[in-house]
Amino acid sequence: MLLDRIVWEKTSSYVKRNSERFIGDLKELCRQPSVSAKDDGVEECANLVKGMLEDVGISARIIRIKNGKPVVYGEIKSEESKRTLAFYNHYDVQPPEPLEKWLFPPFSAEVHDNKIFARGVADNKGNLVARLKAVEAIVSVMDSSPVTLKFVVEGEEEIGSPTLPLFIKKNRAMLNADGCLWEGARKDSYDRPVICLGSKGILHMELRAKGPERDLHSRWAPIVSNPAWRLILALATIVDADERIVIDGFYDDVLKPTVEEQRMLTHVSEDENKLKEILGVKSFLRESTGPELGKDLLFEPSCTVYAVNSGYPDGKTILPCEATARIHFRLVMRQKPGEVFEKVKRHLAEKGFSDIAVRKVGEMEPTKTSVDEYVTTIGIRAARQVYKTNPVVHPTAPGASPMYYFNNWLKIPTISACGVGYAGSNVHAPNENIGVQDYIEGIKFLTRFILLFGRRNV
Amino acid sequence: MLLDRIVWEKTSSYVKRNSERFIGDLKELCRQPSVSAKDDGVEECANLVKGMLEDVGISARIIRIKNGKPVVYGEIKSEESKRTLAFYNHYDVQPPEPLEKWLFPPFSAEVHDNKIFARGVADNKGNLVARLKAVEAIVSVMDSSPVTLKFVVEGEEEIGSPTLPLFIKKNRAMLNADGCLWEGARKDSYDRPVICLGSKGILHMELRAKGPERDLHSRWAPIVSNPAWRLILALATIVDADERIVIDGFYDDVLKPTVEEQRMLTHVSEDENKLKEILGVKSFLRESTGPELGKDLLFEPSCTVYAVNSGYPDGKTILPCEATARIHFRLVMRQKPGEVFEKVKRHLAEKGFSDIAVRKVGEMEPTKTSVDEYVTTIGIRAARQVYKTNPVVHPTAPGASPMYYFNNWLKIPTISACGVGYAGSNVHAPNENIGVQDYIEGIKFLTRFILLFGRRNV
Repeated sequence: MLLDRIVWEKTSSYVKRNSERFIGDLKELCRQPSVSAKDDGVEECANLVKGMLEDVGISARIIRIKNGKPVVYGEIKSEESKRTLAFYNHYDVQPPEPLEKWLFPPFSAEVHDNKIFARGVADNKGNLVARLKAVEAIVSVMDSSPVTLKFVVEGEEEIGSPTLPLFIKKNRAMLNADGCLWEGARKDSYDRPVICLGSKGILHMELRAKGPERDLHSRWAPIVSNPAWRLILALATIVDADERIVIDGFYDDVLKPTVEEQRMLTHVSEDENKLKEILGVKSFLRESTGPELGKDLLFEPSCTVYAVNSGYPDGKTILPCEATARIHFRLVMRQKPGEVFEKVKRHLAEKGFSDIAVRKVGEMEPTKTSVDEYVTTIGIRAARQVYKTNPVVHPTAPGASPMYYFNNWLKIPTISACGVGYAGSNVHAPNENIGVQDYIEGIKFLTRFILLFGRRNV
Repeated sequence: MLLDRIVWEKTSSYVKRNSERFIGDLKELCRQPSVSAKDDGVEECANLVKGMLEDVGISARIIRIKNGKPVVYGEIKSEESKRTLAFYNHYDVQPPEPLEKWLFPPFSAEVHDNKIFARGVADNKGNLVARLKAVEAIVSVMDSSPVTLKFVVEGEEEIGSPTLPLFIKKNRAMLNADGCLWEGARKDSYDRPVICLGSKGILHMELRAKGPERDLHSRWAPIVSNPAWRLILALATIVDADERIVIDGFYDDVLKPTVEEQRMLTHVSEDENKLKEILGVKSFLRESTGPELGKDLLFEPSCTVYAVNSGYPDGKTILPCEATARIHFRLVMRQKPGEVFEKVKRHLAEKGFSDIAVRKVGEMEPTKTSVDEYVTTIGIRAARQVYKTNPVVHPTAPGASPMYYFNNWLKIPTISACGVGYAGSNVHAPNENIGVQDYIEGIKFLTRFILLFGRRNV
């Protein structure tokens, strides 16, 4: 225990001494665009990440699956412990648009007000670099890692990880581990570190209504059906005025929170006024408040129209020849994306919208991890020691991710623990940012986590 | 009458002799972009039109109203007749997008298969140039015009003629005339010339739903209302599955066809299979057929969503911060755009959508002209003589236009008569085109119309 404290103090002081350089390296990674949706800079970014892994002593290589974007895989073996800890991260980012809403260029990584602004700095480059810097600190102090570490850094997370399942299937043995730290959580609106024990699932769909072969003068509207109307009428059958999903059987498989989850939920409160300010809203949907808000966020499946398009924004007075929408359902335990897809199709047919073409664009299953897993215990302990407060344990993350493949296929208990972001990080939105101090604290948390994970007796 | 026949034969032969040059001049005008929605080439086009008026002996000038696009106004005085004939045209065109659907560049005015392809060639540059060439033919043969001619060529028709009302108000005396030929009709799907005795009205609206201040990660969907849903749900309350408008009182002021209009409607048939092919549809809305189809087209008001936008087509998984739609109602006698606007607002409020911001973007009143007007008589007679068939007289045009200002404010009986387009002209759509022969015939029709209009005894 004494040795442990000495190592911990030395790594902490190493992080402090090198923090300027650590910030510089994060900025460098953020300056490399890596928009998977547009295939912009992805290859360059993968190479940069590989180099960053190697720089801290991790042996790294790039693995390609079919036409997928490169996965950067890294390992550092430990002589001291039989345990293996895996990390999942992604180097790709969401498109930065709308550019005009950014205070600073999205790939400039400028620091203002002690915050680093960049697309991807919170999701997920900040967490990735924090992990690498934690490894560097440990290896510098100990000359080795106290536990075998494995890094999976993919480049398709923001487009639904289409080839990740195949990567997992092909590399089962290589990926074996005792626990996995997911891409990262964040601080909540009370500034408390958050640990999430699972992930929602997701079903992405495209709906497309076809009308006349080409746009027509809209004088034909009395005798030609308008695909924009068809799409709007079809979509409007999916949710009610409270945005609850009104598809037959949609909620059938939704599990109620267990007693333990209910207990956890009592801690999942939010500073509601601060959260409203951060999100830029005046009220919450269905006027939810208090514990109901946390329950909604974590246990309510949702359906989001995230894109709908028909006609021309400059206002051509046409009867458009087609209309498309992208929607996704965020799913909770134990909804199955495939089954939900069938329910949506059946629903549309029953409502008279067989003319709407429906296509599955992506899917991921919901998953959850037990609070009793070793990885969870270590996560909570490391958070307490570094943040000097109890982390708030969420029964699941509010977002979807490919965690299911790790948790359920590979049987590696996986959690999202803390991370460099905060409630105002504007993830996926303009002005994505993290606090410089949160980044440094994040490195310390990861250092502590790795050290604890490798200890013989916890 | 003998003199008349000689003049008519001479002008016809002049048109025939000069047809190549006439086609060239039309191409030149079509090669000048004039997209009012984007303010692209509008000034240049106005100057070109002014020059084309002057070239055929019309004294022309450009009149500006406030920030509006220039109106080209022209006159040619007649010593022979006290009658005055006015022409309404517009030199602006719809945006050419989507460019990839054009067989030939939209501003190249290429001739293929005896058809001229260009944005605006049917709507409305072809008709405008045909009129000018008719004037040229007459003046060349007679050395003067048999009737005073007035030309109003505006540059804002495709964006709803926002400053035309003020132009009319300010120039009442100048615009005085005994009849007005509107921008032009076309041939129907049986290739019969069409005369329209009026015009529908229109009400353009923008609907805008505001959500969070900026796009959010869609993981917030269970607690943050999505403006795309708000907009879709609001729009879906406006029409039923047959695209009939279900706003309280919307049809209150709709006049049924009179006995005379019903008689006219018996002639307004369409070659339904050909029309389906031309429009690129498999069936008509509400399965209408036969006389019902013509009645729908001319007497049914309609509501068209012509643009709806939210999120990003590349599929960013966000909860978008706003959603907008453009819709318009095409109105029939005696619906008033202002009253319909109030009804829509009231409807949305009653349905629980007071959060949707509604803005009037433009409006025009419906109007109709009597079949007994002098201008109508001349139109029918000239059509019979040139096309060797009875024109089909439509009680109104299927489209909207600012005809109301001429018909009702200026009290000039106004009709759309024949024109250079046909049912497959793809007006407002890619591959807009007219037949070369239809263009030359159109010039002859206008020549005949002007000659007849000026005759002492008809």
